[in-house]
Amino acid sequence: MALIIQKYGGTSVATVDHIQRVAIKVALTKDKGNQVVVVVSAMNGQTDQLLNMATEITANPSEREQDALVATGEQACAALLAIALESIGYKAKSFIGLQLPLVTDNVHTRARILDLPTAVLQQTINEDIIPVVAGFQGVTEDGSITTLGRGGSDTTAVSIAAALKADRCEIYTDVDGVYTADPNICPRSRHLEIISYLEMLELAGLGAKVLHARAVELAQKYQVPLVVRSSTGSERQTWIVNEEDLMENAIIKGVTLEKNVSKISLIRVLDRPGIAYKILSPLADAAINVDMIIQNASIDGFADFTFTIPTTDLDKASKLINEVASEIGALEVLADNNIVKVSAVGIGIKTNPGIAAHMFKSLSSENINIEMISTSEYRISCVIEEKYGELAVRAIHKTFNLDNSK
Amino acid sequence: MALIIQKYGGTSVATVDHIQRVAIKVALTKDKGNQVVVVVSAMNGQTDQLLNMATEITANPSEREQDALVATGEQACAALLAIALESIGYKAKSFIGLQLPLVTDNVHTRARILDLPTAVLQQTINEDIIPVVAGFQGVTEDGSITTLGRGGSDTTAVSIAAALKADRCEIYTDVDGVYTADPNICPRSRHLEIISYLEMLELAGLGAKVLHARAVELAQKYQVPLVVRSSTGSERQTWIVNEEDLMENAIIKGVTLEKNVSKISLIRVLDRPGIAYKILSPLADAAINVDMIIQNASIDGFADFTFTIPTTDLDKASKLINEVASEIGALEVLADNNIVKVSAVGIGIKTNPGIAAHMFKSLSSENINIEMISTSEYRISCVIEEKYGELAVRAIHKTFNLDNSK
Repeated sequence: MALIIQKYGGTSVATVDHIQRVAIKVALTKDKGNQVVVVVSAMNGQTDQLLNMATEITANPSEREQDALVATGEQACAALLAIALESIGYKAKSFIGLQLPLVTDNVHTRARILDLPTAVLQQTINEDIIPVVAGFQGVTEDGSITTLGRGGSDTTAVSIAAALKADRCEIYTDVDGVYTADPNICPRSRHLEIISYLEMLELAGLGAKVLHARAVELAQKYQVPLVVRSSTGSERQTWIVNEEDLMENAIIKGVTLEKNVSKISLIRVLDRPGIAYKILSPLADAAINVDMIIQNASIDGFADFTFTIPTTDLDKASKLINEVASEIGALEVLADNNIVKVSAVGIGIKTNPGIAAHMFKSLSSENINIEMISTSEYRISCVIEEKYGELAVRAIHKTFNLDNSK
Repeated sequence: MALIIQKYGGTSVATVDHIQRVAIKVALTKDKGNQVVVVVSAMNGQTDQLLNMATEITANPSEREQDALVATGEQACAALLAIALESIGYKAKSFIGLQLPLVTDNVHTRARILDLPTAVLQQTINEDIIPVVAGFQGVTEDGSITTLGRGGSDTTAVSIAAALKADRCEIYTDVDGVYTADPNICPRSRHLEIISYLEMLELAGLGAKVLHARAVELAQKYQVPLVVRSSTGSERQTWIVNEEDLMENAIIKGVTLEKNVSKISLIRVLDRPGIAYKILSPLADAAINVDMIIQNASIDGFADFTFTIPTTDLDKASKLINEVASEIGALEVLADNNIVKVSAVGIGIKTNPGIAAHMFKSLSSENINIEMISTSEYRISCVIEEKYGELAVRAIHKTFNLDNSK
């Protein structure tokens, strides 16, 4: 008897019909003698519909209330799935974040999980009742409802898998796994049967929408075997495992395009110790993720300072940076949301010098100018002009021999 | 400085525009130097929409999950109103039943409040933040979400008013108070400026949709001054007060028509002690409200036993009664949902003998047959055939000189 956590995303529960089909999938898993805990997202479109009502009222709704608002989407879906399970003869109980409780910090709209007691879930499982957990949401220590950020239901599922020491965590979504590139952008992309946590982490963080990055991080940390499957019938799937369990070892595993990226430049900043901290700490305080950072060589004691952030945080960040700029006497602040980030990901990168050069060459042969570069052990990323994004993905995909030969 | 609880019903918060108008009404009350706690229902239509999804899955969704499902309506609305208040410069925080916590028994879909600690609300008020409470919902001692039954947000509001010892509780709805009869049925009905708790209780219990009966009961018990107002601009309102505070003392204050009523008859039941208990206790166990009960005179040791229940419980009750009937050897069980209850309400009834006769005469003069009768100090009710319901209301309204002279 295995304990299996199953997570169903928004497209898998888009309508009442879909929810009834999910109930049957859960029931089949149970019938095989497994214990099951289900985690659900909101019905597809629901979260946006709720957010639209909030933004009809104000462009900047308070994040506490925004969380309380959107958390209702997952709650309703969990109750409906519990009803669907009961209607076909299985005992089920829905739970929201507050009821477990799934305790988070108080960074609303992108809270991090602090604690997840297992008593409620374990007791429910022991009573042979299927727990259906509303994903994406938690509660602060002082009782406010939080959400874990877009895609946070994956994180809920992996956290539950880790806390309950589940045998595996199955992520059901509208695609049948991970590909070498987004098939919509790159028609010759290939399906991957297996990939390492670290590669998946880079892919997830860079905008491959299959899995939430924090979910992968947690899965690696707690060694939760993770598998991505389609809820619509495809037999294909992608397992996410430890690096050492990988059979095949292609240098580059995938190419990604991240669109939610903007850059801010401070022009002619007096170059002295502590200046980077001074510029970036207000952003850290506001929980804005700064990604790439570049400071050009100092000329007559002044330098330009450029960094990238998610476009969704651009307004907030611009405001903060304009305050800092006048404090430190920068000449000018420039913001640009007309860029994208294209990346090559693979565990082969660290052991293969020259990969970066190979990638830059493929971009230059398409006459694409590289504005910023960053690299890690598993990844090379280039910021380029937005209009070249998809072309760049196809060029890099081809350069690293990832194209499907069919 | 007064502490005022304001409750806004579903039609008052039907759209985002409505919610923004409610925010302004709340703000105006705050600006006059009052402390305010707001209670909201779900946006009009939302509860039905959620229930429809559940009944798409099964005709009998489990009540625990049904509660978890519909409670999302009030939660979303409370968050939106908090956002609207913040957008016009007022501090606000939304709360769901679980967060206060508003503790109830575990009779799902019509739970009763057991406890309502004030710490969370009081602290919020002390911080000059307007609490916006999701009405209609609570939580059991073991953490399941419950709802208080249709119209339960009124009860939430009055309970909060009682717990916080508020100066008054204002119920905003789509009508401007209580009328002598439903104006849709009886065009000559008159607006009442003031009415006693006990009269209102009878009216509320009998289907006058202005106020939830349990809310009136609680208001009387804790002496919460209650006022019903329109959220759409009318200046008229109805105060609900103690009997002794009434100036005017008309014998009959109003006439109501209750449609959600069915009767069940057990034919030829052996008439022996304990038989009524035997018949009715399974209904009590299932929390089904039995209203009128009639047992006809015993003939050769057998009697017929008839009672009324809400039509919404008819299926459940029929099933239970058929089991009882075969146990006790009744000849037959008859169910009839083709009836209505028409009632005259007024504190004058107890001191005016002959009122009942007057009412029966007005029905008979319209050739309406009375099937069952029940009376209390404040009320005379007759069960009649459904098709005569509205005619009966107009006849009784006229008989007691309630018709508007205009």
